[in-house]
Amino acid sequence: MKRYILLTPGPTPLPPSVSQAMAQPILHHRTKEFGALFEYTLEQMKYVFRTQASTVLMCTTSGTGMMESAVANLLSPGDKALVHATGAFGDRFVKILRSYGLSPVVVSETWGHAADPEKLRRALKDNPGLKAVFFQHTDTSTGVLNALEPLARAVRELQPEALVVVDAVSGLAAERLETDAWGLDVVLTGSQKGLMGAPGLGFAAVGQRAWARVEEAKLPRFYFDWRSMRKSLDKKETPYTPAVTLVAGQAEALKLIRAEGIENVWARTSRLAGYTRAWAAKVGLQLFARDPAAILTALKLPEGVDGDALIKDILREEGISIAGGQLQLKGKIIRIAHMGFISQADLDAGFAALEKRLAPSGAVRSA
Amino acid sequence: MKRYILLTPGPTPLPPSVSQAMAQPILHHRTKEFGALFEYTLEQMKYVFRTQASTVLMCTTSGTGMMESAVANLLSPGDKALVHATGAFGDRFVKILRSYGLSPVVVSETWGHAADPEKLRRALKDNPGLKAVFFQHTDTSTGVLNALEPLARAVRELQPEALVVVDAVSGLAAERLETDAWGLDVVLTGSQKGLMGAPGLGFAAVGQRAWARVEEAKLPRFYFDWRSMRKSLDKKETPYTPAVTLVAGQAEALKLIRAEGIENVWARTSRLAGYTRAWAAKVGLQLFARDPAAILTALKLPEGVDGDALIKDILREEGISIAGGQLQLKGKIIRIAHMGFISQADLDAGFAALEKRLAPSGAVRSA
Repeated sequence: MKRYILLTPGPTPLPPSVSQAMAQPILHHRTKEFGALFEYTLEQMKYVFRTQASTVLMCTTSGTGMMESAVANLLSPGDKALVHATGAFGDRFVKILRSYGLSPVVVSETWGHAADPEKLRRALKDNPGLKAVFFQHTDTSTGVLNALEPLARAVRELQPEALVVVDAVSGLAAERLETDAWGLDVVLTGSQKGLMGAPGLGFAAVGQRAWARVEEAKLPRFYFDWRSMRKSLDKKETPYTPAVTLVAGQAEALKLIRAEGIENVWARTSRLAGYTRAWAAKVGLQLFARDPAAILTALKLPEGVDGDALIKDILREEGISIAGGQLQLKGKIIRIAHMGFISQADLDAGFAALEKRLAPSGAVRSA
Repeated sequence: MKRYILLTPGPTPLPPSVSQAMAQPILHHRTKEFGALFEYTLEQMKYVFRTQASTVLMCTTSGTGMMESAVANLLSPGDKALVHATGAFGDRFVKILRSYGLSPVVVSETWGHAADPEKLRRALKDNPGLKAVFFQHTDTSTGVLNALEPLARAVRELQPEALVVVDAVSGLAAERLETDAWGLDVVLTGSQKGLMGAPGLGFAAVGQRAWARVEEAKLPRFYFDWRSMRKSLDKKETPYTPAVTLVAGQAEALKLIRAEGIENVWARTSRLAGYTRAWAAKVGLQLFARDPAAILTALKLPEGVDGDALIKDILREEGISIAGGQLQLKGKIIRIAHMGFISQADLDAGFAALEKRLAPSGAVRSA
């Protein structure tokens, strides 16, 4: 028997009432009872997305499936698109586009740096005729925050025909995002991070300009077809059997978010980020990201520390899950999450586990 | 407060221990703990699929997404395929194939009739060069059982290059299915019917002949790409964050199935089907399907009975979910499921609710 603490940037720990909601008896998905739960969930998602103008869709899938749905619903063979990549999840958009036979323009930032609006402006001038530009709100792999407002403004000014598509899987309900006020055409997210749900649900806020494109887009799609998802909304249904228990949990988590207030959720996440960074400064660990988001703190490990062995040891001995680096950052950084139901006490437990292992060799100071 | 009874053919009711497993704290999906749970689930799925030769894959999606994954992973633009359709789910295969730009040959049976091997043989002779033939094990819309063994044999004899692809979403773990012994190349299913899990997980048993095709198939796919699912199996992982709570529930449900023994599960489902049909004969309701499966009993409603109003009334007044007819059968039949955790007492409650409403007008006799 072990008590686990999750400090990973998704899945994040679940509030007890969310777990309890998921253990309730299964509702059939074509009933008034489920319809009410589903409608409530989508209404609260509009609140979290900060949109009145967009339609919110839901699909049983991981965040990656939701990213793919944006590609398949918005583009046609031969369409030009641009990805402004700031880490592994920007690269994922590139891979998805290529798997559909498209050849996106890629603007890459050094990992740890946010998307540079000036660099984007040059790329928009050099590549006319773009149908869509893809961004991450925050990139989970690097802990970077992208300033979506000036990025979206650059697209609107220089290529008004291009849609602004944002992957906010790790940032939504953790970091300020304003779908309507910032002019974002499509915003995508998943249930298992700031939204405090269990993994398995994807959501998309799809604006009017995007819907016009969906009607004419020619890439193949069936399960991910936004047209059938929208059509089913009239009956408060999904086109195919949804993950009923996950919806029950998500509805409960959204009730908690609504009660706290989304601005307070952002402020809490930001406070935990500040708390973690104050601890890191005390023990002498440096931030990896030059332009850090509040969703997580990515810390560089001192030379000679094997990050993979460190986090495996902490999980085995203490039951605390801390994330390591992905791809080129494997073993070189650790990532401590602040979104969702993670508490200051959880962070303290993580800090203690790290200090216990790194202070004796002098790799860090004691706080 | 209302106590619900689910007599619908998916989602089916969950055993209490499955609900409890889903309410356990979230495990991170890149840990040894989750890896063990995932590996156990796939191992037991091999037992349920009756295969040693196939690789079992899992994806967070509904059954329809799993059906689409078979199309996208096995075929290339211009490929010829055949669908032997026996209801709404055969028609769905046709729609998926068409959404990918393919033009399948369609062999259709009258709803309620099983796929006729002789009809299939003629179609196989008339349409050389097929790459795949798609079947349903049981079609949930009509309650029909297809005799997969002779159907698969016909494909092997007449078109040995064609893959046999079976949608067993509603039939698996309810009705005998032998992946290896019957020579089925691909068998697809979902978590929410005979498997007694919550909806949201899809599984596929993919045999060696199918894998060769997957490597050369050219239809676009990313989230549904079986190659990345197979690659991740080496690390006991999924390519993207899986629905962790649903896997925990599914593992528990598979433990129950394993303890009962799959032959006993089939026998129990069949007993409940017989029990329901004996009741139907007593009250004078006729079976809709000429070739009925054990997964559910579809019953024709007497002239003048509005089936939609009937089942809505029963749900509202008694908390019992009974399924109606789909598409052309809307309002004309009711479907009472027998798969998964449905009990004889649940059926008795459903029978009482039906008799109470239909006997006074003489639409049925009292049992």
